[in-house]
Amino acid sequence: MKPIQVGLLGIGTVGSGTFHVLQRNQEEIRRRAGRGIEITMVADLDVARARSVVGDQVQVVNDARAVIANPDIDIVIELIGGYGVAKSLVLEAIAAGKHVVTANKALLAVHGTEIFAAASAKGVMVAFEAAVAGGIPIIKALREGLTANAIQWIAGIINGTTNFILSEMRDKGLDFDVVLKEAQRLGYAEADPTFDIEGVDAAHKATLMSAIAFGIPVQFDKAYVEGITKLSAADIRYAEQLGYRIKLLGITKRAANGIELRVHPALVPAKRLIANVEGAMNAVMVQGDAVGTTLYYGKGAGSEPTASAVIADLVDIARLHTADAAQRVPHLAFQPDEMSDAPVLPMSQVVTSYYLRLSVSDEAGVLARVTGILAGAGISIDAVLQREADEVGGEGSTHTDLIILTHDTVEGTMDRAIAEMQALPTVLAPITRIRKEELA
Amino acid sequence: MKPIQVGLLGIGTVGSGTFHVLQRNQEEIRRRAGRGIEITMVADLDVARARSVVGDQVQVVNDARAVIANPDIDIVIELIGGYGVAKSLVLEAIAAGKHVVTANKALLAVHGTEIFAAASAKGVMVAFEAAVAGGIPIIKALREGLTANAIQWIAGIINGTTNFILSEMRDKGLDFDVVLKEAQRLGYAEADPTFDIEGVDAAHKATLMSAIAFGIPVQFDKAYVEGITKLSAADIRYAEQLGYRIKLLGITKRAANGIELRVHPALVPAKRLIANVEGAMNAVMVQGDAVGTTLYYGKGAGSEPTASAVIADLVDIARLHTADAAQRVPHLAFQPDEMSDAPVLPMSQVVTSYYLRLSVSDEAGVLARVTGILAGAGISIDAVLQREADEVGGEGSTHTDLIILTHDTVEGTMDRAIAEMQALPTVLAPITRIRKEELA
Repeated sequence: MKPIQVGLLGIGTVGSGTFHVLQRNQEEIRRRAGRGIEITMVADLDVARARSVVGDQVQVVNDARAVIANPDIDIVIELIGGYGVAKSLVLEAIAAGKHVVTANKALLAVHGTEIFAAASAKGVMVAFEAAVAGGIPIIKALREGLTANAIQWIAGIINGTTNFILSEMRDKGLDFDVVLKEAQRLGYAEADPTFDIEGVDAAHKATLMSAIAFGIPVQFDKAYVEGITKLSAADIRYAEQLGYRIKLLGITKRAANGIELRVHPALVPAKRLIANVEGAMNAVMVQGDAVGTTLYYGKGAGSEPTASAVIADLVDIARLHTADAAQRVPHLAFQPDEMSDAPVLPMSQVVTSYYLRLSVSDEAGVLARVTGILAGAGISIDAVLQREADEVGGEGSTHTDLIILTHDTVEGTMDRAIAEMQALPTVLAPITRIRKEELA
Repeated sequence: MKPIQVGLLGIGTVGSGTFHVLQRNQEEIRRRAGRGIEITMVADLDVARARSVVGDQVQVVNDARAVIANPDIDIVIELIGGYGVAKSLVLEAIAAGKHVVTANKALLAVHGTEIFAAASAKGVMVAFEAAVAGGIPIIKALREGLTANAIQWIAGIINGTTNFILSEMRDKGLDFDVVLKEAQRLGYAEADPTFDIEGVDAAHKATLMSAIAFGIPVQFDKAYVEGITKLSAADIRYAEQLGYRIKLLGITKRAANGIELRVHPALVPAKRLIANVEGAMNAVMVQGDAVGTTLYYGKGAGSEPTASAVIADLVDIARLHTADAAQRVPHLAFQPDEMSDAPVLPMSQVVTSYYLRLSVSDEAGVLARVTGILAGAGISIDAVLQREADEVGGEGSTHTDLIILTHDTVEGTMDRAIAEMQALPTVLAPITRIRKEELA
């Protein structure tokens, strides 16, 4: 059978990796897929760079639409990124009857409903294993490996930049700003790191996993998104003393009245495997009602790890491009006419537990007033850590840190309790609130 | 579309779990698969017990062949186990044109070549996700998720019984025999635990992963198999002092001149995630040339975790049973006419590093003689731990323990060096040799 021909839009880090891996492992991939898979045409604005990557045997153009218009191309890989031109090109490729492979989590988390509908109408596949957790085959695990289960929750370290920063902060006791600069110098953080450190990238990925796990449409606009920029070295240290580590988690959860979808820093018990995922590595925990807890770990970014996921999608398409819709795996795991209308819950309705740090006057009765407010709100306390004043503020200090761990409570209730505590004259600075996830 | 009808052979722990999960999640599974999946007929020698599990709506017989002969049944689940009647029934089901789902690692590791050939000739699928690592979708990850990669090695904790025993031995400082009895009492070990504790079960699973990873036929007879029965509490303690934990690993590896396939206890650096997999949990590390290190973790046994894998296979078959061979994933990941003839290497040609424990006389020159033998064999030493005699044998003792960690060497060379050291008059007891895997 003749090789399936692939066109590549955008040959940066992941595109180069995809080209090189396909070339290096072409025999092994052909022996698995049953036919060759070849990138025969590449579009990139920087034609010279593209040519330097792919050599003379591949057609290089600066116009992505020339790739889409090429009738010999069966599959288009979109690695341009972003919501803009990438969206038009993906929709045009679909309209031209091409299957699409993309690593573009932002595009799918925001415009997935439109894109998947167009693909289904045209009878083509849009595959996106590379969009979540890089080389870890988590989309396949969720969409095919765990089909027996009512998924209960997913919690993942799905952004390598922020995990690297948090690992360094803990390891070296440094503050966020210092470590961010180091991460940028080492190439673990981009020059404009906003999407990573503010949790947006993780929220794109969590949105995709949420849709697949629960059969709901992608709803990035409903996700709660909180980054790591406000975390202090002190919180990481206190968490450690209490037996926890702080990780930026993408969480989606089936609750009684809807679906939770949220990204924020969270205390995780230090003994959990996922708490020990360090540096730029990713890991996703999935809890299913039949299988129990599973975890998937690997490199969440980088040239060849991401290429590994792109090529796995190419092999799937090479097998199934002649199949009918019933023989293919639905884009969002559930059949398009079998999606759920369960709402994504507002953050005020989410139930979780909390770490609170209050900077308080070192005087009698403070703890009683604070715990009185929590008791009044029906929030039960799991642990309290009160530091000696001179440990926190130096000798003769008149303020100290009061750390409280709570049991599960509704976020809206906690919001009100925090407002009430904040109004106490003995509470000297804005209260720090970090959510806590036992992941048991 | 009418539900796909499934016949179940053997309704013990996993069979009951499969029936219950299919029933409990039938709506969710139908919404994913695009059609219902129903167990409509069950065969078990204990008809009364089977009836008590499935109720009145399912046909129960004591003759498995009646299930295979039923023309309404599309898929047969074989959960009888073993090499005997299970083999005949699987082959008869295939001959009758039924797809087969099985959790029977022993059967496939030994007779897989015959069974897969029969299935391919008949155009049916034999699916076996449940045969390796229970609910972890490791077969799917290897066979579909990592198709881009030249797999370099796999190392897995793939037997929950032995991992439970090793965890308890380390945790409580107890010897093997004591913990085995406790494991039997708790139901983590069977009355006859031979297959588990001698490494045979793990070797069945490693054999299947080896075939899928490297495109070689299943060759259980070539696997090196060593269990955990000879491990002492002392070795676990010394390993800990050196920064390692001892795990029973199933390992398969691509070497220059063939494939390694082996099951044995191994020292693993304590900081690796897999070293922290405790109790009856399973985890599999897979190293691919593009993706780097990945890890898959979850419950490796039990009723519903294993059912999760069985049902995932049912959903795959429900999608692909009308597809042609090119559209299906090959049984052993590679197309049947594209298998490799790379040999499975004899253990004497395996390259790894070692932990050695020698009980020696507490006299001058012993260390020099031992290290001299290793140097003469070209084996380089990574670390030495020599205990004070009275710590090992009590006050006034004249013998002590000498612990040596080596760098990589060929097993055959190590065999000869051990024989030479063993012959020294100052070496007082059989030398303990445990392999060491850095898994980096």
